[in-house]
Amino acid sequence: MANKPDPHLMADMTWPEFDARVKAGAVAFIPTGALEQHGPHLPLGVDHLLPTAIALDIARQVEGMVAPAIPYGYKSYTRSAGGPFFPGSTGLDGATLTAVLRDVIREFVRHGIRRICVLDGNYENLWFLNEGIDLAMRELGETGLKVMCLQHWSFLTPETLARLFPDGYPGIELEHAAVIETSMMMHYYPHLVRTDRIPDNPSVAAPPYDMWPPHRHWVPESGALVSAAAATVEKGRIIAEQYRRDIAAAVRHEFLSAADGVATA
Amino acid sequence: MANKPDPHLMADMTWPEFDARVKAGAVAFIPTGALEQHGPHLPLGVDHLLPTAIALDIARQVEGMVAPAIPYGYKSYTRSAGGPFFPGSTGLDGATLTAVLRDVIREFVRHGIRRICVLDGNYENLWFLNEGIDLAMRELGETGLKVMCLQHWSFLTPETLARLFPDGYPGIELEHAAVIETSMMMHYYPHLVRTDRIPDNPSVAAPPYDMWPPHRHWVPESGALVSAAAATVEKGRIIAEQYRRDIAAAVRHEFLSAADGVATA
Amino acid sequence: MANKPDPHLMADMTWPEFDARVKAGAVAFIPTGALEQHGPHLPLGVDHLLPTAIALDIARQVEGMVAPAIPYGYKSYTRSAGGPFFPGSTGLDGATLTAVLRDVIREFVRHGIRRICVLDGNYENLWFLNEGIDLAMRELGETGLKVMCLQHWSFLTPETLARLFPDGYPGIELEHAAVIETSMMMHYYPHLVRTDRIPDNPSVAAPPYDMWPPHRHWVPESGALVSAAAATVEKGRIIAEQYRRDIAAAVRHEFLSAADGVATA
Amino acid sequence: MANKPDPHLMADMTWPEFDARVKAGAVAFIPTGALEQHGPHLPLGVDHLLPTAIALDIARQVEGMVAPAIPYGYKSYTRSAGGPFFPGSTGLDGATLTAVLRDVIREFVRHGIRRICVLDGNYENLWFLNEGIDLAMRELGETGLKVMCLQHWSFLTPETLARLFPDGYPGIELEHAAVIETSMMMHYYPHLVRTDRIPDNPSVAAPPYDMWPPHRHWVPESGALVSAAAATVEKGRIIAEQYRRDIAAAVRHEFLSAADGVATA
Amino acid sequence: MANKPDPHLMADMTWPEFDARVKAGAVAFIPTGALEQHGPHLPLGVDHLLPTAIALDIARQVEGMVAPAIPYGYKSYTRSAGGPFFPGSTGLDGATLTAVLRDVIREFVRHGIRRICVLDGNYENLWFLNEGIDLAMRELGETGLKVMCLQHWSFLTPETLARLFPDGYPGIELEHAAVIETSMMMHYYPHLVRTDRIPDNPSVAAPPYDMWPPHRHWVPESGALVSAAAATVEKGRIIAEQYRRDIAAAVRHEFLSAADGVATA
Amino acid sequence: MANKPDPHLMADMTWPEFDARVKAGAVAFIPTGALEQHGPHLPLGVDHLLPTAIALDIARQVEGMVAPAIPYGYKSYTRSAGGPFFPGSTGLDGATLTAVLRDVIREFVRHGIRRICVLDGNYENLWFLNEGIDLAMRELGETGLKVMCLQHWSFLTPETLARLFPDGYPGIELEHAAVIETSMMMHYYPHLVRTDRIPDNPSVAAPPYDMWPPHRHWVPESGALVSAAAATVEKGRIIAEQYRRDIAAAVRHEFLSAADGVATA
Repeated sequence: MANKPDPHLMADMTWPEFDARVKAGAVAFIPTGALEQHGPHLPLGVDHLLPTAIALDIARQVEGMVAPAIPYGYKSYTRSAGGPFFPGSTGLDGATLTAVLRDVIREFVRHGIRRICVLDGNYENLWFLNEGIDLAMRELGETGLKVMCLQHWSFLTPETLARLFPDGYPGIELEHAAVIETSMMMHYYPHLVRTDRIPDNPSVAAPPYDMWPPHRHWVPESGALVSAAAATVEKGRIIAEQYRRDIAAAVRHEFLSAADGVATA
Repeated sequence: MANKPDPHLMADMTWPEFDARVKAGAVAFIPTGALEQHGPHLPLGVDHLLPTAIALDIARQVEGMVAPAIPYGYKSYTRSAGGPFFPGSTGLDGATLTAVLRDVIREFVRHGIRRICVLDGNYENLWFLNEGIDLAMRELGETGLKVMCLQHWSFLTPETLARLFPDGYPGIELEHAAVIETSMMMHYYPHLVRTDRIPDNPSVAAPPYDMWPPHRHWVPESGALVSAAAATVEKGRIIAEQYRRDIAAAVRHEFLSAADGVATA
Repeated sequence: MANKPDPHLMADMTWPEFDARVKAGAVAFIPTGALEQHGPHLPLGVDHLLPTAIALDIARQVEGMVAPAIPYGYKSYTRSAGGPFFPGSTGLDGATLTAVLRDVIREFVRHGIRRICVLDGNYENLWFLNEGIDLAMRELGETGLKVMCLQHWSFLTPETLARLFPDGYPGIELEHAAVIETSMMMHYYPHLVRTDRIPDNPSVAAPPYDMWPPHRHWVPESGALVSAAAATVEKGRIIAEQYRRDIAAAVRHEFLSAADGVATA
Repeated sequence: MANKPDPHLMADMTWPEFDARVKAGAVAFIPTGALEQHGPHLPLGVDHLLPTAIALDIARQVEGMVAPAIPYGYKSYTRSAGGPFFPGSTGLDGATLTAVLRDVIREFVRHGIRRICVLDGNYENLWFLNEGIDLAMRELGETGLKVMCLQHWSFLTPETLARLFPDGYPGIELEHAAVIETSMMMHYYPHLVRTDRIPDNPSVAAPPYDMWPPHRHWVPESGALVSAAAATVEKGRIIAEQYRRDIAAAVRHEFLSAADGVATA
Repeated sequence: MANKPDPHLMADMTWPEFDARVKAGAVAFIPTGALEQHGPHLPLGVDHLLPTAIALDIARQVEGMVAPAIPYGYKSYTRSAGGPFFPGSTGLDGATLTAVLRDVIREFVRHGIRRICVLDGNYENLWFLNEGIDLAMRELGETGLKVMCLQHWSFLTPETLARLFPDGYPGIELEHAAVIETSMMMHYYPHLVRTDRIPDNPSVAAPPYDMWPPHRHWVPESGALVSAAAATVEKGRIIAEQYRRDIAAAVRHEFLSAADGVATA
Repeated sequence: MANKPDPHLMADMTWPEFDARVKAGAVAFIPTGALEQHGPHLPLGVDHLLPTAIALDIARQVEGMVAPAIPYGYKSYTRSAGGPFFPGSTGLDGATLTAVLRDVIREFVRHGIRRICVLDGNYENLWFLNEGIDLAMRELGETGLKVMCLQHWSFLTPETLARLFPDGYPGIELEHAAVIETSMMMHYYPHLVRTDRIPDNPSVAAPPYDMWPPHRHWVPESGALVSAAAATVEKGRIIAEQYRRDIAAAVRHEFLSAADGVATA
């Protein structure tokens, strides 16, 4: 446990500290994720733990602040996260996730925040988050609010992917509990990686459609859609560095550039 | 940061570990709280930080497991939490909070959980949590599910209150960011208490009704409804001990007694 | 049945009469209640009958007008109203009650009303009423609308409680179909009290939490949580007088004082 | 005010009395209406006052019981009720009205009621009531529940209409605050009819479509769509008799006939 | 299939063509209908096919444009459309139909459209469409938007009905898959009428109320509530001509007259 | 216009014909799309016109039936469809689209359908369709229902993409109104392609995140995200053939194989 309040975590701030950040025009980061199976070697919290860590990294670059993560996300789909069969995969209805984000944005705007970055770590969340942002924008009308929404892996460049996957990138849909997430957990939360249980199963070959009820046989026993054996803490560091640099740059570009009318941090 | 996974935190578990707990009949604790002003001396996260700590204490007594806290709660009301004026007080709509809890319960039941304890730390949450539980029960039909819902301060006995408040207990509605919560934060999260800023303002005297728009003048400048000056880490320890003993006893009584058909832990 | 229209009941007014009241700045009272068991001696309608009578009393003091009561309310909880087991206890979903009040307020504002007092008689209703008011305020934006919300028993002073309960007040949560409500019914609706069936069972001792499914054994057979044997018509008169004086004073203070910019009635 | 409880009004019953009625298989009548302008001579409450009176008449025929009226209804439409312009016309959103009826039915079924008659007095309510019934039926599944829904004027036969309108029936859409409703109020609630203000304006000639925003000029100043001058208490008596006979017969036919498996009252 | 884009169908337009129409102040027609049984001789799509054809006819008169039909509508009721028993009768929940129309109107207004005509072909849709329009108007505030809503048969004059029904008009509620709809299909979509299967069953005599579960025996085997044997293509032509003339006139009157401030087409 | 009913289109069928198809176990195809800008050369209806044509092709292979297309879809996003700026891009709220599909599935199941294929043509629709299917499955419980959901372009194999894009595939997100959709429209609806206006603008280079309010400068003036100049009717034919073969095979595999217990068509 830390020995003093983290100056970039909202939950640690007193209200006068929060207010000072808001008045300084700080970007508010909202990490979103899930409670969801991540193979036999990673914990259920990966999808909200990683965005929280990434957001904190970036908030420190831009003097932003990180809201409490929304720890429950949309339902696990079979082709992208192994499906609902897996114990622990806990999915909100889409409308619920949308409502939570809409409400939090509405309140942040009421407090004076005008720059929000939703940083997601659960593939299936994206469109329900988009909708939450859109509903908040429509309801709030003209406030000057600007919202950025991103899934962290979208910032991985071809060059980085080539370093992470010397044998070829299988695509983000299969990258569940695999090399990217395992490496990042090794970097940010090493104590939560069960290195003795990293799966090395072959990739699944899912068809180009979904089925209800979902097919259990489309998913490997382990819950990892491809092998995670090639994960390393060094790869985690490479990813974290790219995010720290490139997501921060995007945040500065959209929120803190001259065009935005506010001096950069 | 811990150096190994906490065996009682869901977010730290792998799915096989989670599954083993479920199959053993473990009680699942869902901490619920808020992001809300707590005076100049306590952080915005008090209402979800405390239930998380309490739940973990109890889970260790009964071999239960603690789900990720629902960190955003219902709106801050003026007479009980200072009102929406305060920077950082971030309120969900009632229907949103209800939906989150209903969805999480539905999913936990799908995974085989049949004993759930909702442990709340935000006074205004209660009825929207009750409704979430009720809607889940109705939707799920006959499953054997049992849900307990409590706000931790309800377990403070007259004897304990007499020890905490030698000069008389002002009542829970005014106990916001005051002696109870400050003492508990000193016990569980000492690094988050700004001891040099503990307010000592006189109590407010709110009338027996609410007004919309809310009256700012009903609330002291600090956001603390009564003085927190009498808070001590020792009082925090007393409270924590009572919870550990009495909430655990209630959990055992309702979920793990012979009448429940399951051996106690 | 009355032999002429009551000039303070909305349902009795023609539209030109209603319009004249609105243009005079009248306070609109909305009684809210429930259809719910009230022991073997009181009718199911107690919780909407009492607020209607109280509101009419006060409307006559302040030249206000009383809207039709919302006769169905939120679900009966075991510890405060005996629970859903009892025949006749008819609970709306929280979102339904919230929507009804939001809609009625929206419409009253459209007609020009700017002072509304929600006068509740069903303990479990409160937070869903609060939410209905809050949603209406947010949707309506800047209109000058002011809303007061109260549960009548909150206006009972310690002095009055000492007169009503010479042996000590058991607290409002147990005061269901007991001394307060029975006395008030004796005062306002004597023909509806079955005086030969007033229960005298000992109090329940409910634990500090709720359970789902609810425990039937937490509630006495009669549905009265404590004895109502000490109820008298004189106590009803005392309560009614206090409400007539103190609620009317609060209404004048918030709505009709000089600060409000409108002459008192 | 009555001098004893009405044995056919739910709100007057104690829970054991209610339970006895349910166990006897009583039909539950739910009157539904509105708070809505009814010309310069009738009160805003007509649409819920009349169904309550009619339902009570019929309940006495068939040993049924009358639930508290749902006093707020769907929005006043210009061609059928004068439109939203009129002070006092207070419209719920359609989804709100639907939810209230669905919830009440769900609860009545939980208490054992299997025969429900929704008796409506507000033209615009019908389809939102239908939907509330349909949603309740779908949610409840196989319970044996049977629901009848009617608007009282549908039971007026050509013969009766010929007696009421010797010069020809203008059609139900224009019959707002006109001969039928005024005569019925004279019969059931004579003290609420301002006989000195009965309007005698010519009929409107509304086109075969609706417009938003609604056209104020489609409606006479008075709010009565046709003349009510021909209303008499005798006509009210004729209508009430027909309802008492024919609605009761329909209720017996659907709910209490041999085919229904229950002895008639 | 047509050999060039229809200049009055939105779905056929490119966005610059659509934009040009909007800037010219064109009326947007939204056909609404259902997928619902229409006897053994007419297809399930009658209720959306007819309004599409009628709307196109009128759009050509007034240089309007026709949006894609909303092809699914509200539930089939027994007395007016044969009920849910019939294979193919596919009913949306009321709230769903309301939401679709509200959303489409909101978006059309965002694009600059200010004149909308909702042209319905499914009797049961009306009030849920009304509600969708009302919710959109309220949400949008002051935009200058005007919306007309009509069901096409309301434009049939007594003179035309006399020509169509020499033996007397049975009323629109029974006119399902009968003379009017069959004749119109013969006129607009002759290839979809199975002339060898036109039913000639006697009329049903439905009572003046609805029942849930619905009574199958209230409806003829064929699904046609009255005989359609008298349908002819000539009658279809008569109806189409009247609509073309009178609905276009109403559209011009409400939207394009001098009073509206826009030159007629 | 066709000269006889299409035996595979639901809207063309009578109810007995529909019923016969259902009893034969036919797969029901639900095309879903949008009304949305597709550059200066393609009509607004592309996204529902194409799935309708594809579904009909496949229904003819497998003796299925095609439901009326849901013609309005989710909101146009800037990076994938040009954004809401473009005239004609008409987006439903996510919850609305979800509700429509849920309702249609519920009704089809009520009629006896157990095999449904949702065939989507609007990239942004997918997750709201998934949610609609999921909610329907949950509500319906155990019925044997199986639902397939696909976006047609997911069936394009690397081999086909190599033929369509000799210079490299830009990825589906940019393929809006570009080579694939333009070629398919040339194949299925040649009369709707304005061949003289096919845009040849360079590709956009959108960043890896979304912004609200959306940036207009991320999208080319034309609305086409990449050049469509290489579109040909031959490429359209290639795509159509692949879909006819491979989607039909997938449908047979999931719904009509021996494992499914039903003979193939």
